[in-house]
Amino acid sequence: MVGGGLDAFIGDVHRKAAALDGQFDLVCGAFSSKPEKSKKTGNALGLNPARVYDSYKEMFESEAKLPENERMEAVSIVTPNHVHFDPAKIALEYGFHVIIDKPLVFSLDEAKELKSVVEQTGNLLALTHTYTGYPMIKEAKAVVKSGKLGDIKKVFVEYPQGWLSTPLEKEGNKQASWRTDPSKSGAGGAIGDIGTHAANLAEYVSGLNITHICADVNITVENRMLDDDSAALLKFENNASGVLIATQVAAGEENDLKLRVYGDKGGVEWTHTDPNTLLYKPLEEPAQILRAGTGYLSESATSNTRLPAGHPEGYLEAFANIYVEFYKAVKDHQNGSLKEITEYDFPNVDDGVRGMAFVDTMVASNKSDKKWTKFIL
Amino acid sequence: MVGGGLDAFIGDVHRKAAALDGQFDLVCGAFSSKPEKSKKTGNALGLNPARVYDSYKEMFESEAKLPENERMEAVSIVTPNHVHFDPAKIALEYGFHVIIDKPLVFSLDEAKELKSVVEQTGNLLALTHTYTGYPMIKEAKAVVKSGKLGDIKKVFVEYPQGWLSTPLEKEGNKQASWRTDPSKSGAGGAIGDIGTHAANLAEYVSGLNITHICADVNITVENRMLDDDSAALLKFENNASGVLIATQVAAGEENDLKLRVYGDKGGVEWTHTDPNTLLYKPLEEPAQILRAGTGYLSESATSNTRLPAGHPEGYLEAFANIYVEFYKAVKDHQNGSLKEITEYDFPNVDDGVRGMAFVDTMVASNKSDKKWTKFIL
Amino acid sequence: MVGGGLDAFIGDVHRKAAALDGQFDLVCGAFSSKPEKSKKTGNALGLNPARVYDSYKEMFESEAKLPENERMEAVSIVTPNHVHFDPAKIALEYGFHVIIDKPLVFSLDEAKELKSVVEQTGNLLALTHTYTGYPMIKEAKAVVKSGKLGDIKKVFVEYPQGWLSTPLEKEGNKQASWRTDPSKSGAGGAIGDIGTHAANLAEYVSGLNITHICADVNITVENRMLDDDSAALLKFENNASGVLIATQVAAGEENDLKLRVYGDKGGVEWTHTDPNTLLYKPLEEPAQILRAGTGYLSESATSNTRLPAGHPEGYLEAFANIYVEFYKAVKDHQNGSLKEITEYDFPNVDDGVRGMAFVDTMVASNKSDKKWTKFIL
Amino acid sequence: MVGGGLDAFIGDVHRKAAALDGQFDLVCGAFSSKPEKSKKTGNALGLNPARVYDSYKEMFESEAKLPENERMEAVSIVTPNHVHFDPAKIALEYGFHVIIDKPLVFSLDEAKELKSVVEQTGNLLALTHTYTGYPMIKEAKAVVKSGKLGDIKKVFVEYPQGWLSTPLEKEGNKQASWRTDPSKSGAGGAIGDIGTHAANLAEYVSGLNITHICADVNITVENRMLDDDSAALLKFENNASGVLIATQVAAGEENDLKLRVYGDKGGVEWTHTDPNTLLYKPLEEPAQILRAGTGYLSESATSNTRLPAGHPEGYLEAFANIYVEFYKAVKDHQNGSLKEITEYDFPNVDDGVRGMAFVDTMVASNKSDKKWTKFIL
Repeated sequence: MVGGGLDAFIGDVHRKAAALDGQFDLVCGAFSSKPEKSKKTGNALGLNPARVYDSYKEMFESEAKLPENERMEAVSIVTPNHVHFDPAKIALEYGFHVIIDKPLVFSLDEAKELKSVVEQTGNLLALTHTYTGYPMIKEAKAVVKSGKLGDIKKVFVEYPQGWLSTPLEKEGNKQASWRTDPSKSGAGGAIGDIGTHAANLAEYVSGLNITHICADVNITVENRMLDDDSAALLKFENNASGVLIATQVAAGEENDLKLRVYGDKGGVEWTHTDPNTLLYKPLEEPAQILRAGTGYLSESATSNTRLPAGHPEGYLEAFANIYVEFYKAVKDHQNGSLKEITEYDFPNVDDGVRGMAFVDTMVASNKSDKKWTKFIL
Repeated sequence: MVGGGLDAFIGDVHRKAAALDGQFDLVCGAFSSKPEKSKKTGNALGLNPARVYDSYKEMFESEAKLPENERMEAVSIVTPNHVHFDPAKIALEYGFHVIIDKPLVFSLDEAKELKSVVEQTGNLLALTHTYTGYPMIKEAKAVVKSGKLGDIKKVFVEYPQGWLSTPLEKEGNKQASWRTDPSKSGAGGAIGDIGTHAANLAEYVSGLNITHICADVNITVENRMLDDDSAALLKFENNASGVLIATQVAAGEENDLKLRVYGDKGGVEWTHTDPNTLLYKPLEEPAQILRAGTGYLSESATSNTRLPAGHPEGYLEAFANIYVEFYKAVKDHQNGSLKEITEYDFPNVDDGVRGMAFVDTMVASNKSDKKWTKFIL
Repeated sequence: MVGGGLDAFIGDVHRKAAALDGQFDLVCGAFSSKPEKSKKTGNALGLNPARVYDSYKEMFESEAKLPENERMEAVSIVTPNHVHFDPAKIALEYGFHVIIDKPLVFSLDEAKELKSVVEQTGNLLALTHTYTGYPMIKEAKAVVKSGKLGDIKKVFVEYPQGWLSTPLEKEGNKQASWRTDPSKSGAGGAIGDIGTHAANLAEYVSGLNITHICADVNITVENRMLDDDSAALLKFENNASGVLIATQVAAGEENDLKLRVYGDKGGVEWTHTDPNTLLYKPLEEPAQILRAGTGYLSESATSNTRLPAGHPEGYLEAFANIYVEFYKAVKDHQNGSLKEITEYDFPNVDDGVRGMAFVDTMVASNKSDKKWTKFIL
Repeated sequence: MVGGGLDAFIGDVHRKAAALDGQFDLVCGAFSSKPEKSKKTGNALGLNPARVYDSYKEMFESEAKLPENERMEAVSIVTPNHVHFDPAKIALEYGFHVIIDKPLVFSLDEAKELKSVVEQTGNLLALTHTYTGYPMIKEAKAVVKSGKLGDIKKVFVEYPQGWLSTPLEKEGNKQASWRTDPSKSGAGGAIGDIGTHAANLAEYVSGLNITHICADVNITVENRMLDDDSAALLKFENNASGVLIATQVAAGEENDLKLRVYGDKGGVEWTHTDPNTLLYKPLEEPAQILRAGTGYLSESATSNTRLPAGHPEGYLEAFANIYVEFYKAVKDHQNGSLKEITEYDFPNVDDGVRGMAFVDTMVASNKSDKKWTKFIL
């Protein structure tokens, strides 16, 4: 692991998600740019002190020297955005597979460059767009794909949070500080942090790429340096239209990502507050409550569920589903039986590139007087 | 009543809403442009046949000749949009008060002209934007006004319906036929039929006027003549921003108008599917479930509720609340004690003018290449 | 109307429900045992002062003397329970049809006697068990009857209120005073006031009579004179079992009557908080959200709905549905085409007798050491 | 681990729950009474083959011989009920701590005997009543304890499942087979499998012991050998009353354990379908939606939550919370700093004894003609 010191949120999530299904063991880490903190973290996690490193460079170098059956097989990168590209690139070049928190990197340029590193090295890169890991999101995708909804006409995705309603970054909140700092987050605040999740989810379930965006991106809190609020009109490749909302100043909201997709024969609705349910609404028939863990779901939903119906799974399980799928690819790679990357159901470097392009398109559209901005790729 | 023949939806709603609280009696009507149908309707409703008229002109003329204590006092106009202006104007000029279904008229020009008739005659005009009649919408407005939410930053309003997902107007559906016919509905389809409700609700609760719109207005069903789908980015007078969705092709959706308003201290959320509840979400405190009929609500919510908590009221009661408030103004007018029109809590001709302007602004914005269109007034 | 003075809750409900569909006009009343109050109420309601009476006896006598086409046709009795029997009996004997609030009367003996009066006079009596008037309760009954649920195995009905959690009757609350007073309410407090609703609903939807009860009936507030809390195990005629909860001390609850019926092939669930929805849960298939006003419902649900899907109806509309059905029977009676009373879908004197028997059975079971008490009829 | 072969449900749950927080490693197991199956399971789990045992006796013996820092520290027992007592007793006697799936053992006698073994050996035993591990259940307990609800008056707990609506045990369903077999499950079917969870939850949150039960216990499916359905009236030690429902034939239901506790000042409501929410309903004030991961919760809720508000946790996390607390006690035991067992917030042998007594009391009450049966301890 790179990053994920003791007080970090997402590092701990990665560790728990990786541990859940017993496929990954945490064997080494460079948990902080401060060696002392890295050591302390490694110690608390019960690691062999010899494999707690002062820097990721040292880690990649040292681990690469270990015998093949002893060295780490893959690395989780869970640092702030501006420290994604470099460790990812080096890790891939040293022959390690990479699983990395979103957004992929700091800028679209970095994203494109990382994509070539992935292609050149032939190593694997997974991106933790958590929400696509939920079983009922798999089901939503399967329902769309089945044609039950008819031609897709509308995609509504919204991601309202409220935690940045006040200038938390001025009050020593660590999460708020780096996420509103353009030198660490990149060109996007809310649009990078949660907008990329929303866009990725919309494209994943609908099976359609966004082609044009008309965005309204705002800083609503005085002296904040990055956007904390955004909304956009969307056009998709089949001419469907949609709306995306990604805001961190909807005071009182937690983290309720919600997706609705409508075709001319029906719609589906999923909300993060009730993640084990998918509403399927066929036109002029009763809506159906599809539930995780039941016997009537698609193979894809079923294989991403651990428990029978009525035993709620949550965020960590969705996260873990990405690790499980990544594990399959790592094993296939090791066995020489790697399939096309698109055969694996985890977000990859291409999703990462689209995410960075989404941020750039939102920013460009917001600055433009023109209504529609073509998706920048 | 003008319009509201036996098979009409909204005419029956007006009759029931007016009857509910025992303040209005239906005494006469011109229920259809076809005299036979008007007679049949009047008969079914148990009216005195002498007061069932062949045309609204005849009705106004005849009723005006009756002694003051016998003639009708107010008229409900429940015809399609293109037959709003003329009967409203004549009624007002004959000295009758008017309650009229939304949208106010066929065009912004008609709206402005009708406004002058209202001003010149001094008679009353109420517009049935039903949703503002709900007690928990009154409460939402009261919460915003109280300052509990702080400065308003975001307004999300959405009105998804699915009934026009298929070309119903080609299959003899009467409602679909006139609502998708520009010669009867005016410049707007979905934007006039439900978009005006959404915009009115957003402005009513937030207490803020929309100043700029960036709209995406679509016809999604082949050969349809008017828009069946729309979404817009909004700017409000205090620089708050928002999103409006008004679509009739969200297949599987019924009529779930939903409003969310956020300030920097909290938010409120109301949805038509659960109209007796208002969620109030103070920042960093537990959300509260405010319920109609309880003892802790604002005076405005309480006076628009008939039943104790836990006894659901619905659409007809909200509708009736507009009639009740209109009744007060009619009585005050008759008693010579009429207050400023803004003292009465029912939608009036100004709301109607703004509604028509909203339609025109949506249409203009949709045609424009520019992102923002100033609200046309 | 008998009873229903200005400050009464249920009298106003009856008036609004009767008015809603335009079939009943309020023409006369004895609104209070205090003549002054009766006059004041009649005046406020705009009645002809000559037909506002000092007592119900006077009213029945006077109205009976009026020409047939002028006199009242039916009477609503909305007094406390101890003043149900006498006016109902006299009214029926004078030839008036009666619609009466629940519970039917003060005691099982009175109930049985009133039943003979109904039979002897051949006049109509309807009982306002409101909740059976909801369209989705009609649908629930239709689903059970269709056999879709298989053999009925379990019936859960619960009616939690919280308003009597404190000794309100000591604080001048009028509703609390008579409802906790055995000389006005009869043998049952909560069991009479809301338990009878719950039992009636369970039997109505399941189509099964309760045969045995094992009850726990409590007074939880010190010095209260009647039960404020109860629960019971139930046996039904087909050997199904169930649970009934009727309490008025579930602090914080409003009025959320809830019914669940399960057979071996599926279940249905309805709750008063969301009355326009019925959940239908087929075994091992997705649950379905059945909604009022849609095209796929039973005839019975449809004919008890006024509005299209997504336009909520509530308590007054459910109440009005009983009036509408009663109206049909009154008209048929007047036309000499009266059918069997069971052909009309409103609660009648037999439901009233069962209600009183339910109260007596609950009381008897509570006093008994034995587990099961046979339903007393 | 004892039990938990590859196709077992609850064994896998224990493994994932133990792994989640990185405190337990699975080092050895006797996964089945069939040595081949045990080997296969151990292999699939990546265990050292030398520590995959043919029987639990062999495991305890062999592990006890390993050096202290190499041998297992605690054992999870996840076999059917009839194979709980023996491995638990032996493990404790060999000096291992035990975490065991509910119900504790096969009979009340075994439970009492196991309790003395725990006391005699001084080793730890935890029982996985999962539902008490949920953070919002901790919060419910804290709200009750705080006195905010006043004196507790009513406790409603229900656990409806539908999966045994048909004779699955005749169709080769493994779960159904042993759970409906008295030689494997003990005296209770549904009452043991889920009734014990419900009773435990009610007592845990209310802080009150059940003192009397009046039960209706049924076999609703022909030729089934154990109860599949039950309901009971309850009395608690402070004279509060309640209702318990535990049924596996509510066709269409999944696993929706629900608890409501009311005092004279308010109530709380929790449901397994939405486990991260606790409704707190103060009398005559707005209900509050308390949410896991927020800043306003009790210490107990907070320390049982891993993620910020809006990131759902589920069944595995609740399960893991028991492991985490058990881990603390194991560490304290090893460090010689063990506190009173009641200082640790996990279900222990006393809960297990009460669970077995609950089953016996339900069975006795069902057979009895008397209404109330004293809780058998």
